[in-house]
Amino acid sequence: MYIPTLADMLVAHERIKPHVHRTPVLTSSFLNALTGAELFFKCENFQKAAAFKVRGASNAVFGLTDEQAKNGVCTHSSGNHALSLSYAAGRRGIPCHVVMPHTAPQAKKDAVTGYGGKITECEPSTTSREAVFAKVQEATGADFVHPYNDHRVIAGQATCSRELNEQVDGLDAVVAPIGGGGMISGTCLTLSNLAPQVKIFAAEPEQADDACRSFRAGHIIADDAPVTVADGLKVPLKELTWHFVSNHVTDILTASEQEIIDAMRLIWARMKIVMEPSSAVPLATILKNKDVFAGKRVGVIVTGGNVDLDKLPWMKN
Amino acid sequence: MYIPTLADMLVAHERIKPHVHRTPVLTSSFLNALTGAELFFKCENFQKAAAFKVRGASNAVFGLTDEQAKNGVCTHSSGNHALSLSYAAGRRGIPCHVVMPHTAPQAKKDAVTGYGGKITECEPSTTSREAVFAKVQEATGADFVHPYNDHRVIAGQATCSRELNEQVDGLDAVVAPIGGGGMISGTCLTLSNLAPQVKIFAAEPEQADDACRSFRAGHIIADDAPVTVADGLKVPLKELTWHFVSNHVTDILTASEQEIIDAMRLIWARMKIVMEPSSAVPLATILKNKDVFAGKRVGVIVTGGNVDLDKLPWMKN
Repeated sequence: MYIPTLADMLVAHERIKPHVHRTPVLTSSFLNALTGAELFFKCENFQKAAAFKVRGASNAVFGLTDEQAKNGVCTHSSGNHALSLSYAAGRRGIPCHVVMPHTAPQAKKDAVTGYGGKITECEPSTTSREAVFAKVQEATGADFVHPYNDHRVIAGQATCSRELNEQVDGLDAVVAPIGGGGMISGTCLTLSNLAPQVKIFAAEPEQADDACRSFRAGHIIADDAPVTVADGLKVPLKELTWHFVSNHVTDILTASEQEIIDAMRLIWARMKIVMEPSSAVPLATILKNKDVFAGKRVGVIVTGGNVDLDKLPWMKN
Repeated sequence: MYIPTLADMLVAHERIKPHVHRTPVLTSSFLNALTGAELFFKCENFQKAAAFKVRGASNAVFGLTDEQAKNGVCTHSSGNHALSLSYAAGRRGIPCHVVMPHTAPQAKKDAVTGYGGKITECEPSTTSREAVFAKVQEATGADFVHPYNDHRVIAGQATCSRELNEQVDGLDAVVAPIGGGGMISGTCLTLSNLAPQVKIFAAEPEQADDACRSFRAGHIIADDAPVTVADGLKVPLKELTWHFVSNHVTDILTASEQEIIDAMRLIWARMKIVMEPSSAVPLATILKNKDVFAGKRVGVIVTGGNVDLDKLPWMKN
């Protein structure tokens, strides 16, 4: 298992610069007053493909030699990695094969197709996903870019907190959502090297709290097909992300479905930005654990903005 | 009738700086490709009180002497001016009396109350509004800050395009929504002095197109209680805004209700920002008049972000 390094992050950042945005950091005096903390929202919902995952995907795609790239890339993903890899492959002009659950939001499926990705659907479970994917990979010979258990992907995601650390002075903590752990691992990679005093918190839905239980148990616990509105956070940790989580994360905090939805609506209403449920989990956990963050300067990773505008979770249908 | 000058705008900008944001300008490669123009969105939805109107309201409130301010301020407004004036009065610590139609979005009523404004409701017509307002003004002795037919307010709104002109080089045109004409008048005031080569277009709902008909006729035509999803744009021109519109506007373009809703949804989906229907009218008219804007660098004023998140216009209820 190759553990990506600070040098890998720096190379990744140079490599992906032509293909990604340096996203802005927004603040809200209302949310600062409400939480008692100073919150700095790193807005990856404004990123290309509306997701931080375009960083890791671009690093993987543009790091391939021409020979490696000729059969394209392939992956399985609950959504944002799929469309990010499709975007990056499209920029390079190579095929992208994606296995995704048929239950994924229509907006994400449309975006994958819009960027030129080819979708093969599976059931919404890790087991089905991996079985269908094996067939696709064998048929195409494409390079497999795992959504998070891939050192190239983690080095790419790590560029996000490098920017945040440059954009905000004197951070005390960073809170990011955790699903498979790619963003958190990248955050650990960068901050443990460049700003080791910054505490790193992962935020997770109670209903998909396998990372939290893994953290407490000291080994990976994987659930099959948890149900949560935060559809980007259903996947389990793998060995590479477990390395970073177990070595560098201060704590993993959880929030209920209603707390996540309330936090999401609060951000939309007060900050006037569109972001997906997964991105609201950090604020939900900060509101629940005010004593942990009071008086602190806290970076919050807004991971993506791909949400079905016809099915907002606070609308009663 | 006093016509505000460039000096008034410059004084206003110094006066209001502690109370308002210098809002960011966002771009979208997708919308540029779709329109064939280079669009620069001046995001007043991220403004304090989520509306450009806080500029004019703050200029009026903070320009009062202590003697003038002692009875507070009062106004009638379809929404954003009401909450902006409440915000500014709250910052100064003086009362704010607001007459608003009972049909105004609940989100706007809540925001007015949240900032400390006192609401008196009227019917959704200009006639009723003015009658109820006269009583409130007489009872309180408060200083009347008209939502747009007030030189202090126009000088304040004019600070928005000063920033836009500093933030974007080589603008060819600016498109802003038109209701009573306060934002357009401020835009005319600033650009006719600082960048007279920039063409100014007003964008209006077809179903509330009194400004467009006034422009064609050469005199003010006022409708009573037009119906449109763009609830900020229902009010008629008055003599002061007519001065700017008739002297400096290149053209007034209109869009249908469906075109406005489609443009709004497109901005939410692609730019990941929350803005109100009125703010989508410029993009709707640009999409309808691509030949006018093709190849041009076009500023687009996103006037506000106060929308009822439970009643989005594209949701079928």
